[in-house]
Amino acid sequence: MENGNPFRLHCFPESGNSYKVALMLTQCGASWEPVFVDYFAGTSRTPEWRRDVNAQGELPVLDHAGLRLTQSAVILSYLAERFGKFGSADPAESREMMRWLFFDNHKFTSYLATYRFLRSFTPDPDPAVLSFLRARIDACFAVVEKHLAAHAFMVGERPTIVDFSMVGYLYYPQSETAYDLPTSHPAIAQWLKRVAALPGWRAPYEMLPGKRFASATA
Amino acid sequence: MENGNPFRLHCFPESGNSYKVALMLTQCGASWEPVFVDYFAGTSRTPEWRRDVNAQGELPVLDHAGLRLTQSAVILSYLAERFGKFGSADPAESREMMRWLFFDNHKFTSYLATYRFLRSFTPDPDPAVLSFLRARIDACFAVVEKHLAAHAFMVGERPTIVDFSMVGYLYYPQSETAYDLPTSHPAIAQWLKRVAALPGWRAPYEMLPGKRFASATA
Repeated sequence: MENGNPFRLHCFPESGNSYKVALMLTQCGASWEPVFVDYFAGTSRTPEWRRDVNAQGELPVLDHAGLRLTQSAVILSYLAERFGKFGSADPAESREMMRWLFFDNHKFTSYLATYRFLRSFTPDPDPAVLSFLRARIDACFAVVEKHLAAHAFMVGERPTIVDFSMVGYLYYPQSETAYDLPTSHPAIAQWLKRVAALPGWRAPYEMLPGKRFASATA
Repeated sequence: MENGNPFRLHCFPESGNSYKVALMLTQCGASWEPVFVDYFAGTSRTPEWRRDVNAQGELPVLDHAGLRLTQSAVILSYLAERFGKFGSADPAESREMMRWLFFDNHKFTSYLATYRFLRSFTPDPDPAVLSFLRARIDACFAVVEKHLAAHAFMVGERPTIVDFSMVGYLYYPQSETAYDLPTSHPAIAQWLKRVAALPGWRAPYEMLPGKRFASATA
């Protein structure tokens, strides 16, 4: 049992990368508590935070059993091994999972997260930058749409850490992401329904507590 | 011995992600051959290539012993295990390596590769997009500069796959990257010298054969 060593997740509600880990923790039945980091007030950009918590300056950060873990994909892999759930069955499948986790971090999550951030949480985003990002989102969404038209989940026809990673930013409201997925990407939309049907699933703003970005809640 | 199963690396000379793998193969003393892919002619964007080689549409691709591997970080990890070189010593170091490999793919390589691509290999790049990318490069270069001011290599004070990954785009000429690293980032520049001092090291355009991008060689 993990009860003696609860998980502490440094996070904030707008962080889809934090949501990936929260989703995994709940699906594993872990005992965990969120630690709100006031990202929009600049907490994770202070020299102290970078020295004491994460030199890479990113969230989420997970504390567990004396370890401090960063990078959502590394945390997801750690939890899969720790709980023996949602991970790979053999080395070939492990490589297939890592392949998609890298694709997700490099492109699938990254472009959408940045696009949504600029569009919804910064003043006067440059239209040329939004357009550049949107084209890149569309290109990698097309790769995933094609894959999911033939598969129920990303790897192995069952929910894994790859799904929990890749859905990270896709349950945020259309008002933030500007994607109407059931219309533009029906296979992705169906996959999101399958993940959301897992017992105990909740959407990001219901899962991650803490002060919300002012403009988003205005 | 690996002689019975030579490595075939699908690549092109401008691809720093291909260079990462070529660097690892040479440092491991592997028997390998490059397979030139005419990226700028659109080869990797054809439906046939995506069906037969890599649905994610990316390079490099490595063929070995009946396996077809993609995503440079996955390939580097595979080779480290296969050769017992440049990998991690224990699970904690493995997580530390993966943490930097994800940071590299998400940000450190990604922003510079995209910036250089737009700037050097596309006509009329949008200044707003270049400026956006340059600010993000500067932010993650600052993280790495600080790290390397205190360490000879990225992890464990010895060359590893993390270094081979993160140097991927940093040996291309300043005319392409627009970074004068000895001036702007001296710790990164010193680290590049340490990696370049490894026996058998060669720069990307000396390592990866094939037709060069027209404007770059004009």
